[in-house]
Amino acid sequence: MKNLATLLLLLSTSILNAQKMNITSPNGNIQLQVNVAATGELQYAVKYKNKAVIQPSSLSLTFKEPVVRLKQFTIVQTDSAAFDETWQPVWGEYASIRDNHKQLSLLLKDKSGSGIQVNLVFRVFNEGVGFRYEFPQQQGLNHFVVADEATTFRLTGDHMAHWIPGDYNSNEFVYNHTKLSAVDAKKASDAEPAISAKKFFDKNAVQTPLQLKTASGLYINIHEAALINYPAMNLVIDKKTFTLQSHLVPDAVGNKAYLQAPAKTPWRTIIVTDDARELIPANRMILNLNEPSKVQNTSFIKPQKFVGVWWEMHVGTGTWDYAGTQNGNFDINTIRPTGKHSANTANVKRYIDFAAKHGIDGVLVEGWNVGWEDWFGKWKEDVFDFVTPYPDYDVNELVRYAKEKGVKIIMHHETSASVTNYERWMDTAYRFMKNHNMDAVKTGYVGYIIPRGEWHDGQWMIKHYQRVAEKTAGYNIMVDMHEPVRSTGLHRTYPNWLASEAARGNEFNAWSTGNPPEHETILPFTRLMGGPMDYTPGIFEI
Amino acid sequence: MKNLATLLLLLSTSILNAQKMNITSPNGNIQLQVNVAATGELQYAVKYKNKAVIQPSSLSLTFKEPVVRLKQFTIVQTDSAAFDETWQPVWGEYASIRDNHKQLSLLLKDKSGSGIQVNLVFRVFNEGVGFRYEFPQQQGLNHFVVADEATTFRLTGDHMAHWIPGDYNSNEFVYNHTKLSAVDAKKASDAEPAISAKKFFDKNAVQTPLQLKTASGLYINIHEAALINYPAMNLVIDKKTFTLQSHLVPDAVGNKAYLQAPAKTPWRTIIVTDDARELIPANRMILNLNEPSKVQNTSFIKPQKFVGVWWEMHVGTGTWDYAGTQNGNFDINTIRPTGKHSANTANVKRYIDFAAKHGIDGVLVEGWNVGWEDWFGKWKEDVFDFVTPYPDYDVNELVRYAKEKGVKIIMHHETSASVTNYERWMDTAYRFMKNHNMDAVKTGYVGYIIPRGEWHDGQWMIKHYQRVAEKTAGYNIMVDMHEPVRSTGLHRTYPNWLASEAARGNEFNAWSTGNPPEHETILPFTRLMGGPMDYTPGIFEI
Ligand SMILES: [Ca+2]
Ligand SMILES: [Ca+2]
Repeated sequence: MKNLATLLLLLSTSILNAQKMNITSPNGNIQLQVNVAATGELQYAVKYKNKAVIQPSSLSLTFKEPVVRLKQFTIVQTDSAAFDETWQPVWGEYASIRDNHKQLSLLLKDKSGSGIQVNLVFRVFNEGVGFRYEFPQQQGLNHFVVADEATTFRLTGDHMAHWIPGDYNSNEFVYNHTKLSAVDAKKASDAEPAISAKKFFDKNAVQTPLQLKTASGLYINIHEAALINYPAMNLVIDKKTFTLQSHLVPDAVGNKAYLQAPAKTPWRTIIVTDDARELIPANRMILNLNEPSKVQNTSFIKPQKFVGVWWEMHVGTGTWDYAGTQNGNFDINTIRPTGKHSANTANVKRYIDFAAKHGIDGVLVEGWNVGWEDWFGKWKEDVFDFVTPYPDYDVNELVRYAKEKGVKIIMHHETSASVTNYERWMDTAYRFMKNHNMDAVKTGYVGYIIPRGEWHDGQWMIKHYQRVAEKTAGYNIMVDMHEPVRSTGLHRTYPNWLASEAARGNEFNAWSTGNPPEHETILPFTRLMGGPMDYTPGIFEI
Repeated sequence: MKNLATLLLLLSTSILNAQKMNITSPNGNIQLQVNVAATGELQYAVKYKNKAVIQPSSLSLTFKEPVVRLKQFTIVQTDSAAFDETWQPVWGEYASIRDNHKQLSLLLKDKSGSGIQVNLVFRVFNEGVGFRYEFPQQQGLNHFVVADEATTFRLTGDHMAHWIPGDYNSNEFVYNHTKLSAVDAKKASDAEPAISAKKFFDKNAVQTPLQLKTASGLYINIHEAALINYPAMNLVIDKKTFTLQSHLVPDAVGNKAYLQAPAKTPWRTIIVTDDARELIPANRMILNLNEPSKVQNTSFIKPQKFVGVWWEMHVGTGTWDYAGTQNGNFDINTIRPTGKHSANTANVKRYIDFAAKHGIDGVLVEGWNVGWEDWFGKWKEDVFDFVTPYPDYDVNELVRYAKEKGVKIIMHHETSASVTNYERWMDTAYRFMKNHNMDAVKTGYVGYIIPRGEWHDGQWMIKHYQRVAEKTAGYNIMVDMHEPVRSTGLHRTYPNWLASEAARGNEFNAWSTGNPPEHETILPFTRLMGGPMDYTPGIFEI
């Protein structure tokens, strides 16, 4: 599959007193400098065509267990390398993608006495820079708890930013377009009462991908790649120095990450260009920083169009629930239907007919399964079982009918953010899908997470999304996640994870203040830098 | 199955200004009085043969959602009834058990404006009193969050008590025998460094069952029955008034219980006698307050003796782990055994031979499955999969050999308190058992709970234990839980839940300061009031 792979070991020496290291992108436009001060403090800086992009910025980590602040280091070893390879994605905008970068690795040893070694790895592409912290297997470090990561990005000024407020739970915000000095995350968060389970934490915090424009015409995009087994990163703005500092989403007890060496953080990414047209193609840098596909058999993976039984519920002409009791304790055998339940056999057949007529591959059906009478907003753990249809939804007949029409039914698993419950049912639910000829599922995480105290973007949930991607892959199932963490290029590693919502979708046009027209023009430069979004863009009158 | 069931409706009227209600046990020895003051505050009192046992004690509940303090009530209705039935347990000390009690129900309405109705139900047995709060289905109450339950037991003096310190996580303490005024839970907790994951919270707190003796010769036992979907209750002593107040174990965010009407709390129980010999048989009152068996087919349930491959690891002559790497990231195909791994085929055959020779029904094997190299104390989530044996453990051969010898192998599921992980594996693990002719499992919960922030005795875990009991019942599997909440008579409702450890077992004699001789004489009057314990009492040299 690989066309060309060259790995050049340029330099590998033990350097004890190295103070400055430079590395440039293959085309020379991006210059990375790493400085180690006499104190052992570490800084990195990035230039683009000799203009400063990131001024010297400090990097440090604090562990809670063992208790140590990794801020001052001795350099044990530096390595640099060049890499040029072209690979073929399973699907996507490009038939093949070139991964051409130079790498600088600094093996660092904590000077404070712990002796802990960290490998700081930078990769410099023509599009920008990625770097991460790696924790090699070593004598003095096995399990450890990350209390904080103080990665900083010291900008050159008060740039214009397309931003949404920092949040532990939600990314379904309208974008704001202001200078960094004018960011007011509290106000922006408070302005969004329609978002069901947001969690504000700092008035100067914003989310990534953060799209900036400098006064001198540079476009800078800051994000992360390959978010695996680690919490998502928000950025807190110091409005005096225009320094952005990482703020990791905590867990239920306030810790950030539980890791075991060998381990590594996601890549922190800085894309920079003076031509805005180069920004979107630069999202290939994010993909290049992700691991190759871990899904062996990818033949079942087919990006596709679908229509869905969902909009009519959002605008209120139909309902997800069947009986309207607003009480989950009802007896399915005795309740009476309200007559507004959209996911009924006859209605879904209309959608199948429409899809078949217009060459649309799939029909998503929301509200097909028992539980919608009492699913939302009460931190209720046992809501859905993902295998019990409502009495008016004939799953076997619909699967048969869809097959006859050459259309596939897309499964819907709204978890109501009761993730412990979903995890108990996942295998059963995926087997149910396979038994009913379904190979794609839309999941949803509306509400406050159970385990209670965890957040949508914390490490526990990040591991859950990965678990869903892996488990669905094992069943040859494609997945489209709603209300997960925003994308970081993991569709390279898990190509069956076709899309996420993870931003404000078209649904907000049904019942909130709506999405301003420019919203859809901002998304490609922000949220979409990390990967495809299920925006559900088109609405038909069927 | 029921020999005799009589339900007499003695009184059912609407009483608006009732101030005092009295009800006595069938034999007249126990007298319960319930008073409603002019303010609407509620008190109950208990006498035994005309001696005060519980002086007038207040009852109240605080909800966080909706925000309301249920402390002052209007009486909507009172009902009293008498009940006399004899039932047959699936197994146990008694072939049949008589449930003879009188019941007083007070339907109460909150006076503070919420209009919430609570049904306070007392049952008076010859052995003592049980009472609980019921929340009927009603217009103004659906989902609600319990912030606190202030059930009080105002004692008549500074009684002698057999107590262990209040704790959210552990009940593996040595009993202390002091006056209530001398309780120092902090000191008692600190004195037990060998307990792996205890969680102290109040120096005046003790656990139940709490066994008291008064200066006048009364024996009082305070506990709870039918702990379902609710946190466990600790008791905090007010040393001025000798009032015990309930303290519920919180969840990860500090809430106590998430309920949905109709709902009910466990029974709060007070057993009293002037003859210590009556205490142990009085544990039938706890059983009578539990629901009848929910397990339909009980033919697979057989209390049994077993030997186990476990003690040799506790005393250090063998190990649970195979490779001794103390690192869970090893490759099972390349690691080398230490030679000390006890759960190897040859050694287990010795145990099977011993069991067969001496008429012992089962052989428990701990350390049979991969993961023990790095299982403990690091809040690690993915430890065991419960289906992968170590290379030196031939599960098929051992199952065959055991069957040939007329012995059954007992499965061991140590979860390392990573309960989210166990719940993901439960179905697979139980299917593995059935495929290997096993019908009994010993579970274990050593360490801090995952979901992080939850406690062994909080509502989320209480629901988990019930889920295990129900799910194992569905597979015709018997279960013996180690490190769960202490028993509250649920072996009536789930007779396949044969035993729990839930106290300081014999294992502490292997590696701690040990168990004093009187420990085993105290257990029947404390921990065992709630149900059978797996104390693992005998040690053989095999
Ligand atoms: Ca959404
Ligand atoms: Ca134990």
